[in-house]
Order: sequence, then structure tokens, then C-alpha cells
Amino acid sequence: MLSIPTLKLEEMLNSFDNFLFDADGVLWLGNHPIPGATEFINLLVSNNKNVYLISNNSTKTLEDYGKKLIKLGFDNIPLKNVFTPAIVGADYIAKNKKNNHPAYVIGTSGLAKTLRNVGVETIGVGEDHFGRYTKSDFLENINLECPVSAVVVSYDNHFSYTKMMKAANYLVNEDVLFVVTNEDKTFPGPNPSVIIPGSGSMAAAVVACAPRSPVVIGKPHTAILEYMKVHVNIERSRTIMFGDRLDTDIAFAHNNGLKSCLVETGIHKLTDVENLPRDIKNRESLIPHYIVSNFKTFL
Amino acid sequence: MLSIPTLKLEEMLNSFDNFLFDADGVLWLGNHPIPGATEFINLLVSNNKNVYLISNNSTKTLEDYGKKLIKLGFDNIPLKNVFTPAIVGADYIAKNKKNNHPAYVIGTSGLAKTLRNVGVETIGVGEDHFGRYTKSDFLENINLECPVSAVVVSYDNHFSYTKMMKAANYLVNEDVLFVVTNEDKTFPGPNPSVIIPGSGSMAAAVVACAPRSPVVIGKPHTAILEYMKVHVNIERSRTIMFGDRLDTDIAFAHNNGLKSCLVETGIHKLTDVENLPRDIKNRESLIPHYIVSNFKTFL
Repeated sequence: MLSIPTLKLEEMLNSFDNFLFDADGVLWLGNHPIPGATEFINLLVSNNKNVYLISNNSTKTLEDYGKKLIKLGFDNIPLKNVFTPAIVGADYIAKNKKNNHPAYVIGTSGLAKTLRNVGVETIGVGEDHFGRYTKSDFLENINLECPVSAVVVSYDNHFSYTKMMKAANYLVNEDVLFVVTNEDKTFPGPNPSVIIPGSGSMAAAVVACAPRSPVVIGKPHTAILEYMKVHVNIERSRTIMFGDRLDTDIAFAHNNGLKSCLVETGIHKLTDVENLPRDIKNRESLIPHYIVSNFKTFL
Repeated sequence: MLSIPTLKLEEMLNSFDNFLFDADGVLWLGNHPIPGATEFINLLVSNNKNVYLISNNSTKTLEDYGKKLIKLGFDNIPLKNVFTPAIVGADYIAKNKKNNHPAYVIGTSGLAKTLRNVGVETIGVGEDHFGRYTKSDFLENINLECPVSAVVVSYDNHFSYTKMMKAANYLVNEDVLFVVTNEDKTFPGPNPSVIIPGSGSMAAAVVACAPRSPVVIGKPHTAILEYMKVHVNIERSRTIMFGDRLDTDIAFAHNNGLKSCLVETGIHKLTDVENLPRDIKNRESLIPHYIVSNFKTFL
């Protein structure tokens, strides 16, 4: 049996200056703050702690996050402390692209706007269906007349065969960057019994037929913390990540050398840690340093 | 350096009674027979050998194959000797389904017809786009009012986000069978520089968000040979598979205990065998017993 300590308020305030939070399942569920979450953030801010929001959701712009933070009572988290794979991926493309062509985006208009905010124009958002191209059973060619600087794959409810085929064929050109925002295969909706496919499912399809592997930005990968280190003062030994998912949040902390705390208000609970298969890949990275049932424990 | 022997006509005729052939890249390319192929089949038939066609292409009905065989000069291969994952998968569903509901098909009308030929009705073929359901950015529910007996995933040029979501949610019901016809991630078209996503790319997306794993029918898996053993007399020790792909055809022979011969008229050549990474998974299964540059070598 694993023994994972709970976290005491005083120990926590003495040990850490930087508090990283996942959003969905930790601070809020859909459009409702999780009980105790706003009060806990207030407590940290009043103790002069740095509070950061690290979400894998790439469908929103920073402005959308600002509105949501205010609406749900988290108005003391400044926008400069919000980090998503959309923001970090857009920065990566702006800095690494080989030309000034637009990015081909399999994603939402919010993701496209985040790219445009750093000067990367986009094509591809919205409907693009096979029926436009041919009535035959096979599409033997695809129009790539508009050259691109990057292919970005994220959550896209208009995902289609033709989008997958365009992405794969754009990537034959080695100058084209290949970015996947995050690998979450599903994400939580208001009805927990309904499976909602996430970026990771779109990415699995494109990666299957693409001629090379992508750069993946979101948790549990390290790109977001690398970006944060350039923009804010994060001393790893004084930093803790609060999250509800072992494979994204807790692994992100582990992969970046941070302490981690599982909050049992979202996807995973203590039993999920205890039931991790012995032979699972990277098992150690999935075990949190601390566990709390909810943030009311600190109030 | 690997040493793979070539195959001599007399040795071959003495050693084998059953000759299994992949189609595309081995007998034909698109709508053109590969030089020497029809003559080689004639030679085998005139020596009273059994000739079988084992394709991973599940978009055609058996009748479609019949027309193609006649058109390209392979009219001495009887239709009862043609096997595809569509035929074998349809038989699997007909025999294992828990009810008489239709199958939900992510695939072509040809695949649906193959299912109907064994009494399995289908739903799902054709366009099904997000725009039909909501104008919001997220689809939080999906209409599963029509219950199904199985989810079948194959090549579908109308593949979409909503199809992926329907498939995943149908599979929450454990009575629903989950069948993937084949895992070929791309397939060859008339322009070799164009990537055409195949069943394996659609399957990767559905498997990513689905709550369980599929039964996979096509090469290199063993279901097709299991099915053949019931319907035709195949003595393994007297059987050889001719194919152009290491990961499907040659591995299929290996997985079923058959001899194999790589024909260098399609995807893979001797250099691909020589360049197999030392640490690749199931490396041994990818190495053919024999190699020939083309079938003219036997004429």
C-alpha cells in the first residue's frame, strides 16, 4: 500500500513560493468554481505567494480566460500568470518558423486567434469536408497551393479526413513545423457518462499518417515550464503543482522537477494512485508527493 | 548483412500447394497488372496449385473484386479464393453479435454492402458533420438513439469528429463489438508522393478515445487465416505468402507459421529488410524467407 502524505498549511506556506494550478477539476468544473478554491487562492495571494494557472485547454484565448477568471471569482490571478499550450505553442512557432507563411490549424478559432496574437496568420479553421473535393470513393490528391509554416493539431470539432490528409502532406516539407498542443485523449464535459474526444484523439490520427513526429507542448511535457522560466521567476525547489490528473498534472510536475499535490476534486483519486499497474510506463512520474481531498482542508 | 535466398521455380512447385498473394503492389498497381503476374498465376493454376488473394483493402465487395480480376486478366482466381478483412470481419460480427441491431460503420458503402451480404444491417456510412448538431464550440452529447450491435472502423473519406465521438460512446456498452478492419496507416495511390491516410489512421483516432481495445482483422493479424482454415484446405507447411509489405504481408505469414516471399514490385525492397532497426519490435516477423525482384523470374 502506498503512503502519500497530506499537505499541512504551515508546512506548505514555509516550503513554497510558486503555486501552479490546473484549472478544470481543480479550480472549477465547467462554469462553477469548486468549493474552497477561490478562498484558497485568496489565502495564497494574501500571503504574497505567486499563483499560476497551467491548463491544457487550447481552445480559449487569454482574453477568454480573463473573462472566466473574473466571472468565477479568481480575479486576483493576473492574465500574465495564465499559461496554455496555445500560448506556448504560438510562441514556439513564432520563434522557429522558417518563413512567413500562415500556420495550418486543426483547431478552434480561439487557437487561431492566439496564434494571430503573436503574428502568426492561420488557415484551416472550420469545416473542410471530403464532399468538396470529389464524389469518388478516393481522394488521390489534395490542394496544397497555399504554403504553410507549421501544422498545428489540437481539439477540432470539424476534424475530418481531408484535414488529416492535408496535414500529413504539408508535413512532407521538412521546413514545416509540426506542433501538437496536447495529448489529452478525452476531456470532461457536464455529463460524465459522455465521452468527448480531445486533442489527443485528433493527434493520434494525424501522427499515424504523418511522415514525422510532432513537438508536443502540453502537460506532461516540459515546454510550458521552459517558457515560464523565461517569463517569470520560478525557482523549482520552491514550486508546487496542484492537479487532478496523474498522467498530465502530476507527471508534468515530476518531469520538471517540481513537487506535486493531487487534489481529489476532478478525474483521479487516491485509489487511482494505488491501482497504478506495477508495469505501467513511467509509473514513478504518476505518483504525487502529497494528496488532499479538496482545498477546504487549508481554510 | 542479411542473406535472404531467392526462390527457384522447381523448389517452389515441389514445396508448396497453397499460394497466397497480396493484391496491390504484387498482382497489380491501381488498374494495371504488374508485368509477369498474370503469367505466373497461369503457371501455378496449370500446375494444379491453389491460388488465394489476401488483401487488406476493405472498401470493395467480393463482386467488385470479381470484376477487377476479370478486367486485369486474373480470371482463373475464383471468387471463393478471395479474402479481405471486410469479408472476415463481417463473418465475425454475424457470428458474435449479441443482438440484431445494425452495425455502426466508419467505412465505405462497399464495406456496408459486405456486412449486409451476411445479414448485418448498417448505419453511419456517408457524411456526418459537427455542424448538424450544434453551432457551439463543444458537442456535449451525441444521439445514440439507434442501438447498434457493433462498431466497425475502416477507411472512410467522410471520417469526422462526430463519427469518432459516436463510436467511442457506442463502445461504452460492453455488448457492442469493436472491430477494426486493418491498421494500414496509409495506402498507395497513383501519385506516390501524395500521402493517402488509410484505415489505421481512422482507427488510431477512435482507439485513442474509445473505452476499450478493438479486434483487428487484417494482416498481420491472424483472423484471416483462421477464417480460411474453416473454408478451404490450407496445410500450413505447404503454404507460402507473396507480398510487398514487411509489416503486413511478411508478418502475416510469420504470425501464421507460413513461409513468405517478398516481391520487390511494391512498397518494400531488400534494402528495407537490411535497414530494419536492430531494436524494432517483432523484428524477426518482418524478415521474409525468400525474395524475388518480380514474378518474371519464374517464367
